[in-house]
Amino acid sequence: MASKHEGRRIRLGMVGGGEGAFIGAVHRIAARLDDRYELVAGALSSTPERAARSAEALGLPRSYPDFAAMARAEAARPDGIEAVSIVTPNHLHAAAAHAFLDAGIHVVCDKPMTATLAEARALADHARRSGLVFALTHNYTGYPMVRQARDMVREGMLGALRVVQVEYAQDWLAEAFEETGNKQAGWRTDPARAGAGGCIGDIGTHAFNLAAFVTGLALDEVSAELTAFVPGRRLDDDVRAMLRYAGGARGMLWASQVAVGEENEVRLRVYGTAGGLDWCQRDANRLSYTPLGGVRQTLTRNGAGAGEANRRASRVPAGHPEGYLEGFANIYADAADAILAARAGRVGGDPDFPSVADGVTGLGFVEAAVRSSAAGGAWTRLA
Amino acid sequence: MASKHEGRRIRLGMVGGGEGAFIGAVHRIAARLDDRYELVAGALSSTPERAARSAEALGLPRSYPDFAAMARAEAARPDGIEAVSIVTPNHLHAAAAHAFLDAGIHVVCDKPMTATLAEARALADHARRSGLVFALTHNYTGYPMVRQARDMVREGMLGALRVVQVEYAQDWLAEAFEETGNKQAGWRTDPARAGAGGCIGDIGTHAFNLAAFVTGLALDEVSAELTAFVPGRRLDDDVRAMLRYAGGARGMLWASQVAVGEENEVRLRVYGTAGGLDWCQRDANRLSYTPLGGVRQTLTRNGAGAGEANRRASRVPAGHPEGYLEGFANIYADAADAILAARAGRVGGDPDFPSVADGVTGLGFVEAAVRSSAAGGAWTRLA
Amino acid sequence: MASKHEGRRIRLGMVGGGEGAFIGAVHRIAARLDDRYELVAGALSSTPERAARSAEALGLPRSYPDFAAMARAEAARPDGIEAVSIVTPNHLHAAAAHAFLDAGIHVVCDKPMTATLAEARALADHARRSGLVFALTHNYTGYPMVRQARDMVREGMLGALRVVQVEYAQDWLAEAFEETGNKQAGWRTDPARAGAGGCIGDIGTHAFNLAAFVTGLALDEVSAELTAFVPGRRLDDDVRAMLRYAGGARGMLWASQVAVGEENEVRLRVYGTAGGLDWCQRDANRLSYTPLGGVRQTLTRNGAGAGEANRRASRVPAGHPEGYLEGFANIYADAADAILAARAGRVGGDPDFPSVADGVTGLGFVEAAVRSSAAGGAWTRLA
Amino acid sequence: MASKHEGRRIRLGMVGGGEGAFIGAVHRIAARLDDRYELVAGALSSTPERAARSAEALGLPRSYPDFAAMARAEAARPDGIEAVSIVTPNHLHAAAAHAFLDAGIHVVCDKPMTATLAEARALADHARRSGLVFALTHNYTGYPMVRQARDMVREGMLGALRVVQVEYAQDWLAEAFEETGNKQAGWRTDPARAGAGGCIGDIGTHAFNLAAFVTGLALDEVSAELTAFVPGRRLDDDVRAMLRYAGGARGMLWASQVAVGEENEVRLRVYGTAGGLDWCQRDANRLSYTPLGGVRQTLTRNGAGAGEANRRASRVPAGHPEGYLEGFANIYADAADAILAARAGRVGGDPDFPSVADGVTGLGFVEAAVRSSAAGGAWTRLA
Repeated sequence: MASKHEGRRIRLGMVGGGEGAFIGAVHRIAARLDDRYELVAGALSSTPERAARSAEALGLPRSYPDFAAMARAEAARPDGIEAVSIVTPNHLHAAAAHAFLDAGIHVVCDKPMTATLAEARALADHARRSGLVFALTHNYTGYPMVRQARDMVREGMLGALRVVQVEYAQDWLAEAFEETGNKQAGWRTDPARAGAGGCIGDIGTHAFNLAAFVTGLALDEVSAELTAFVPGRRLDDDVRAMLRYAGGARGMLWASQVAVGEENEVRLRVYGTAGGLDWCQRDANRLSYTPLGGVRQTLTRNGAGAGEANRRASRVPAGHPEGYLEGFANIYADAADAILAARAGRVGGDPDFPSVADGVTGLGFVEAAVRSSAAGGAWTRLA
Repeated sequence: MASKHEGRRIRLGMVGGGEGAFIGAVHRIAARLDDRYELVAGALSSTPERAARSAEALGLPRSYPDFAAMARAEAARPDGIEAVSIVTPNHLHAAAAHAFLDAGIHVVCDKPMTATLAEARALADHARRSGLVFALTHNYTGYPMVRQARDMVREGMLGALRVVQVEYAQDWLAEAFEETGNKQAGWRTDPARAGAGGCIGDIGTHAFNLAAFVTGLALDEVSAELTAFVPGRRLDDDVRAMLRYAGGARGMLWASQVAVGEENEVRLRVYGTAGGLDWCQRDANRLSYTPLGGVRQTLTRNGAGAGEANRRASRVPAGHPEGYLEGFANIYADAADAILAARAGRVGGDPDFPSVADGVTGLGFVEAAVRSSAAGGAWTRLA
Repeated sequence: MASKHEGRRIRLGMVGGGEGAFIGAVHRIAARLDDRYELVAGALSSTPERAARSAEALGLPRSYPDFAAMARAEAARPDGIEAVSIVTPNHLHAAAAHAFLDAGIHVVCDKPMTATLAEARALADHARRSGLVFALTHNYTGYPMVRQARDMVREGMLGALRVVQVEYAQDWLAEAFEETGNKQAGWRTDPARAGAGGCIGDIGTHAFNLAAFVTGLALDEVSAELTAFVPGRRLDDDVRAMLRYAGGARGMLWASQVAVGEENEVRLRVYGTAGGLDWCQRDANRLSYTPLGGVRQTLTRNGAGAGEANRRASRVPAGHPEGYLEGFANIYADAADAILAARAGRVGGDPDFPSVADGVTGLGFVEAAVRSSAAGGAWTRLA
Repeated sequence: MASKHEGRRIRLGMVGGGEGAFIGAVHRIAARLDDRYELVAGALSSTPERAARSAEALGLPRSYPDFAAMARAEAARPDGIEAVSIVTPNHLHAAAAHAFLDAGIHVVCDKPMTATLAEARALADHARRSGLVFALTHNYTGYPMVRQARDMVREGMLGALRVVQVEYAQDWLAEAFEETGNKQAGWRTDPARAGAGGCIGDIGTHAFNLAAFVTGLALDEVSAELTAFVPGRRLDDDVRAMLRYAGGARGMLWASQVAVGEENEVRLRVYGTAGGLDWCQRDANRLSYTPLGGVRQTLTRNGAGAGEANRRASRVPAGHPEGYLEGFANIYADAADAILAARAGRVGGDPDFPSVADGVTGLGFVEAAVRSSAAGGAWTRLA
């Protein structure tokens, strides 16, 4: 139990995540938690002074004014970074990722992978050609019970899948928070920085990815309606979608940033011919499973009945809750394994963490949903 | 507390609800629970022998071979029934209801009100002209916390409504139960007896009605997909729909009879500019409410913070759960009040129970959803 | 499903339960719910005018000024009552029960059975000699999941029992409610009418009985502390006790009427060598069971995995909650079966409902706990 | 949000926590999570080879064969450790702690503080004289909602406290796990290494401390029964106790290691004249609060209504769960603040984390409970 790889640290850099950012600190904790990384360099802000000030506050040995300088300089150092975390607003992911891939540096990138599907495809091509590790932090897939769920689907415990219900509801944008000068709200509601989707890109992609990760189903078509409920908002703050998966399964997805009272409610339910599953972030250490005609069972993190992936992703005994940061850290820990494997020349199998293929699918979902909504909810195939 | 009207019983008859039926016994308990009715006559089955046998088993004073004979004979008796419960399969509701209205007898009718929208409209016209009470047993509206929710919406505690999420999931038809000879499954999956909708008529209408009751919103358009997952099934067993309400609120509705592990999960969430509500049948004695920017509150049946409708619909102190039968009984008790008022010549205001208008809207929803699904999910206005 | 015996009614009388009473109305609903009884006579109040007024309000055919007159008169009628419900304050139970037993009338009696252990023993002797049915409404034993729990213990699914945790917490006496003139609070806090125990007699006996019913264990010794937290209160409003059961199991019992925020929280947990059980009234339709080394299972009322007693005590399908009144009604329905069996000359086996033996044990528990508390918590054997 | 002090690391050593240990890895993650410490030295095992192997596996710069050598050597280095984590079995805490205090090194020590009350007092004296920081990892006090609860009690939101219910139940020792060679089970059930209490020392002290932390109440007397249910076990595996607090509050404590199905259920309920609180580890990010006569409220970690201590102990937004490791890390982070303050010559006020006084009280509780149990549950004053 607890992290098995303490003591072997990968040198890590970070782009974005300086003063006023939220997700940068989460990435740093996640990287640090299992002692698999050492953060040694950063281009933490788009303004050089803030970047330097942020780096100093964190005690970073090396600070750069921008990602390009950092990629160049670190690639040239014998003790340069081996991997980089990209945690900027969405529209800056692609350029930074290309630069580090060019420099031979592994990438951990926040989601959505890029601002557009075209960018996502180009980045995926680049990443694949590079042979480098590319991890996309759809962090909900890092929860042990989510991995348990995926394995149960793979093992056929649900039979043929029929219905998928996924949702991600929060309420922090129930009012025009972006007009108060809040940095997080500002860029997330700005098409120039967030991309074509607001709520759908920010949290809808998490919901979509979570369903895809657990079910393994490919989405064929979507019928969506994107709404901006808050007056003056330029991007959607609530998304409702119907889903047609390959093979006949059907689903619904709801993502909302105006659902008053919901803090970060992420829930996935999957029903097949042989069983049903129910997981939500609020009760993240538990997974409800009912076999057809049987009694509901509550599987727990690292508890009785836990599968191998569940146990591997756990640090402490059952009953002691692990949370968001530990799930996030699992993505980092698995990326570290992949990086070590790559360094050792081993060709990776299917990694446990979301990667460029998921990034492409995610942007494909966003763009199809946006098109569908613009066309009055017409069923729209993923490009 | 507890029933305030014990001892003043209305003479009641029943159509349907004989051997092998489920909902008939529920209606009888609901009618009896608060001592407002005395069941004295029945046409309990479509076959005269079974009707007689069922009546005898229940100790009914008068049994009839069919509803027409019963309406005629009871109307002629000085001690004839004052009200009738119609609990047959859907396709028989309309004819029976017309007969009793013609006979000047108040009607309590199971849902969906009729098999078609045209029938529903004709019945509604008849009922309105008759001046008689017509209660439609969308029983979930009888739960005290559902009435509390409605009142909170009316009082503006949610502000302007934005998002409605409603669902009703069960799993008893996850396999082809209708092929086993089960009476309930048989007629519910038979278009000739259930009408154009399967799952949507049986439980989708409950979900739709529950949302309408609490929100008070009128549905403008629906985009739906109806699916029959079980091979060979002739009617839908899973419905997914997107909803556009008048005034700009948006919603989703999911009803399923193949959701393995769900027993009878009924849940409604409503979000507005000023607050959010969450209620589910599984925890029927509680209602979660969060004001914008505030702390989540758990209102309870008959507890601190309970409004007048909540208290009025309660029998026992808070903490002692009331359930499905008590909610059902509240419809009957309110109908009894309306019948007494009608008898006394008082013109009723807006009754607390669903009535013919709700029946028409419900069938309008079913037919619009069926049409939308047939048209590939096209947004379809309610006729 | 639903009540199987509609239509065969036992003639019932009631002592107590007039104006201002709470539990009388509960008994009436419980008796009526399954159509097993017809309430035809009453001595509903200790003041003749109120008794008459209450009887008229309920539409009772026959009203009596006191229980003695009622027992005498009803016994003499060919259509006299066959059973009586005694729902007065505690100190009046014994005299009334004796009178009806003398008159050959079956008894349903509210709890605690009497005000003292000596009275309880005398009443038990009388009841046994009479051959009549005596049901004690420890109504929590009527919940289907409580009966399921009992059967699982009997079947050995928990192995040898080790630890019992039982509690009943409410808050309606957190302030000196008895000083406001409230009738319920008044007699319950008055030693002359409630007996030697306040909280322990009113709800502590329920908790004690619930544990005994499910575990089947006999209590050897108790170490208790009874406290009156509210200034001026003459009886305990909070009880804490440690329990030593025969055979080595150990337990704790907590009952409180000052636990602010608890409405009527009744919870029982039982742990043995082979499994653990958890049930609470708040989630009354579910029972949690974990086998040693296994996964937690949630059994439901009338659902998959439901045993025979569970199904027999259920009326509606799984997922539709049944509650307090239905549990109470199960005691009445089972008493009806026993009365019919007695009428038919069949000697009853072990009835499913609490009876005089439970009443004696309950008073034994109350008196031992009161003595233990007076002796500074000394371990005290049940007399 | 997220850790505010990244980048300023305290040099840390560790005693114990090598191969086969559990809590050592937890301490390391907790120390690392907020980047406040750098682990640079260790005496990780009682056998030198294992100590060295463990240190190498963790990448520790300096490994010592025993704590005495480590204290001596590190005190002599200019870059020696500033603080040490002591994570050995209980009986070794005292000697190690004295050694590091003598060396002028701050101490973080696992619980229970020592094996005996006499040792605890001596250590407390030493720690106070030293002026060094001494943090005792009663980690449940690190949960944001536990601190919120404490502050609500302090602010008088519960009024005068009346009833305390605390419990800690787990099931990993439901069988004779110690006979399988398991290291954790071995020392915890061995009086020579665990001290006079088994379950009471291991988890009973956590429960006791949690109640003390939140309520601020001093325990006057305890009446306890300690039981070893598993045949052959030499220390208690289940503890039941009644509590008398100074000022009149009363309580119960249950700790069990044989409660089949309970993973690590820690729950505290506190009731006062003005309100009630309910917190459990299973739902660690929420705290239930009900004001007298009011509606139940659910406060959340970092959510609406969160107090200052709650927010300060949080890293990520409300709705994203934080867990056991984050709570543990809060103890470490607060100890880091205290160490920096001590280094800066500032005299500390009342620290937010448990310290030597709590260690003394905890051992006082253990010894009183053991004595009470031996004396048949006699009320026993804390020495």
